[in-house]
Amino acid sequence: MANIKPSLAKGTRDFSPLEMEKRNHIFNTLRSVFRKFGYNEIQTPSFENLSTLTGKYGDEGDKLIFKILNSGDYLSKVPQDVLAEKASNKLIPVISEKALRYDLTVPFARYVVMHQHELTLPFKRFQIQPVWRADRPQRGRYREFYQCDVDVVGSSSLLNEAEFILIYHEALSALGLKDFTIKINNRKILSGIAEVIGKPELIVDMTVAIDKLDKIGLEGVNKELLERGFTEDDLNVLKPIILLDGTNVQKLTSLRSVLASSAVGLAGIAELEEVFSYISAFGQATLLEHEVEVDITLARGLNYYTGCIFEVKTNEVAMGSIGGGGRYDDLTGMFGLKDLTGVGVSFGADRIYDVLEELRLFPASSTASTQVLIVNFGETIEQYTLPVLARLRAAGIPAEIYPTAAKLKKQMSYADDKKVQYVLLVGEEEVASGQFSVKNMSSGEQRKLNLDQLIILLKKEAAV
Amino acid sequence: MANIKPSLAKGTRDFSPLEMEKRNHIFNTLRSVFRKFGYNEIQTPSFENLSTLTGKYGDEGDKLIFKILNSGDYLSKVPQDVLAEKASNKLIPVISEKALRYDLTVPFARYVVMHQHELTLPFKRFQIQPVWRADRPQRGRYREFYQCDVDVVGSSSLLNEAEFILIYHEALSALGLKDFTIKINNRKILSGIAEVIGKPELIVDMTVAIDKLDKIGLEGVNKELLERGFTEDDLNVLKPIILLDGTNVQKLTSLRSVLASSAVGLAGIAELEEVFSYISAFGQATLLEHEVEVDITLARGLNYYTGCIFEVKTNEVAMGSIGGGGRYDDLTGMFGLKDLTGVGVSFGADRIYDVLEELRLFPASSTASTQVLIVNFGETIEQYTLPVLARLRAAGIPAEIYPTAAKLKKQMSYADDKKVQYVLLVGEEEVASGQFSVKNMSSGEQRKLNLDQLIILLKKEAAV
Repeated sequence: MANIKPSLAKGTRDFSPLEMEKRNHIFNTLRSVFRKFGYNEIQTPSFENLSTLTGKYGDEGDKLIFKILNSGDYLSKVPQDVLAEKASNKLIPVISEKALRYDLTVPFARYVVMHQHELTLPFKRFQIQPVWRADRPQRGRYREFYQCDVDVVGSSSLLNEAEFILIYHEALSALGLKDFTIKINNRKILSGIAEVIGKPELIVDMTVAIDKLDKIGLEGVNKELLERGFTEDDLNVLKPIILLDGTNVQKLTSLRSVLASSAVGLAGIAELEEVFSYISAFGQATLLEHEVEVDITLARGLNYYTGCIFEVKTNEVAMGSIGGGGRYDDLTGMFGLKDLTGVGVSFGADRIYDVLEELRLFPASSTASTQVLIVNFGETIEQYTLPVLARLRAAGIPAEIYPTAAKLKKQMSYADDKKVQYVLLVGEEEVASGQFSVKNMSSGEQRKLNLDQLIILLKKEAAV
Repeated sequence: MANIKPSLAKGTRDFSPLEMEKRNHIFNTLRSVFRKFGYNEIQTPSFENLSTLTGKYGDEGDKLIFKILNSGDYLSKVPQDVLAEKASNKLIPVISEKALRYDLTVPFARYVVMHQHELTLPFKRFQIQPVWRADRPQRGRYREFYQCDVDVVGSSSLLNEAEFILIYHEALSALGLKDFTIKINNRKILSGIAEVIGKPELIVDMTVAIDKLDKIGLEGVNKELLERGFTEDDLNVLKPIILLDGTNVQKLTSLRSVLASSAVGLAGIAELEEVFSYISAFGQATLLEHEVEVDITLARGLNYYTGCIFEVKTNEVAMGSIGGGGRYDDLTGMFGLKDLTGVGVSFGADRIYDVLEELRLFPASSTASTQVLIVNFGETIEQYTLPVLARLRAAGIPAEIYPTAAKLKKQMSYADDKKVQYVLLVGEEEVASGQFSVKNMSSGEQRKLNLDQLIILLKKEAAV
């Protein structure tokens, strides 16, 4: 075997016990909220047939898909002239029939189409799995990262949209975030604006320009709009939209007057109102005054979404969006199953991790790691403490004994590095009295307890 | 976008909500046992540098590693004459620098070496992640499957070996298995036998032949041993080993006399005795009479293991081993870090899944799925029940309302397919009385409860 100095593949990461604990805290919190709303977990394979993925993410996306080389003598069937051409792209489908998942959406669409006869609609699923992209790695951007998607297909009810707002609110609150904004828009409102102006092809230019209001002011936005092909007349129509301000109710009232002549625009407004009315019926009307914000510059996935569009930002840390989603009417059309509507959102786990880290919101004490370490003072004490260890574990307490009678300092530093909460010191005196010296590793406090008292203490700590 | 009839990549599987629930039941049970014994979770990336994996699994293994094609113009640097040769193998390192994880052991070794200065030894880790092998798919053999490994490196104490026996016992019992055998052997005993006979190169032939005793009897085994290069004299020495029988203590006694002249053989026996003595000290001596079985034909990973060797079988279902492992003295040597000892075991999650399925040991009621579905009878009732839904979820109960006022039959069949435990029927009468009709979907029983009573009932059910 070659003696290589090992390294990680570019753009990938190891996760240490401490990092795993924090990541699992996020994933478990999301899972438990998704389940409370009736969503069930599915998983799809890490690789799909290349043909399942190709053409779904645009030309740029196709390039970022990791292709898997066929096994065996993969060159045997390649015509010599194709090889001679050295055309990397042309050769791909000949020597690669599989590729790594690029997102969770296309595999989910494939899943729904393949299992359509077993599925009861509406089908509510969540999926937390890694995806892979051959992006150039940079700070905060990895070639392997997790996506957390939650979607319902086969139901057009706006109750679903309302529940996604509740899901965001509940999940982010459960993670300890206090100040975040759930932005909502509706594709139909954007279509309505384009209809009113008569320039549907300029929707994206319009939203991009309007989005800069904070930075460049009304004059700046108008200048950019003119450059992007709008007229002075258009600017007059757009002015109340650009300056859209006030409460959500006020914004919708302004929009209603601007879009009075557009049936599709009014339908978009009515959809937002229905979503808000559901939120109120859930007893969460205060969300509409604080977390939820109508933002008609939100154009996320404009080619894809057909109804409501969501995006979530934290206001406590400078950070891009930590979630987003929307309604789509043709998820499964790419695989031949037409007219299946769906709506879903996703959580950006890596960014949420960074936010929680910066705000120090990860739980301090870990229930995932060892709660108590028994110091090993040699064979006699070992024999005495092994039944104690068995009792602790039988009570569900993560516990271990240091495996050899190493120096006390070494054992204590092991406990320290592993963030063990309590250390048990058992000497001859303790054997005689049936009590243990229990040291709290964070406070340094030490006290004498018998086994039953110790178990009660540890179980109480674990429940915090 | 092309309209393709989608399919799964060969040898891969989707996991439905019901399957995920069962798989998570296994993984969560294992996780919780591993943690109780002081093991912490880590994860490594799905792909590694190809050079990290190549040469670690033998020539056959190398062929089964899935290689990832380089991105971009991957052919540009390939010399024309190499292409003209059409040598698939030779081209691999030129067009592929990454490969999918083949097992969890080599990435773990890479992890330990790369993080050696951050790790406090002994380092106790578990890892539950998929691995990929380009095997020919067949019943029960997939190209993507999960491994569950638990290892400690940096401790030579046999306390670790004893704890792995406890871990197997506790995890398999927690999963509901009642009759299983944890076989144990020691590489040093096999070396001792070879030493006594003077044919160390024939260890594998010997164990393979002896392993057939049940099927072909002593004469058959002897015949095979002669064919494999042993002499009549050897057979006389081997006879008490082949016929090794009785309790573990009796077996060790017989071995002690056969191996009296071999220091290494005696050391192996002493190791097993020490492991057993730890098991007894843990108050689990009965395990040594039932679950644990000394089996000197166990030669699993003979080139790899240097001390104790484990293998676990269920006796309730015909099935290959559901777990195994052992001590190794040179895990990280391949990456230049010498003399780091370790011991670990693994659980075969897919086989355990099949065993639990066959024995119907998966929990009947699921806490992972929706516990209560509110039937949707239209807008008025919807408005009345949304606060109820919010209360149920606030109490931690997975609950949903059917999103539209579809026909009752359709809503009930949705509840049925999703294995929802209770359905809430709220009509005008219920609104007036403040009580709900609660239908138990498995028993069909229906009763009237108010919201508080309902929450108490559901929380009690979830706790079962």
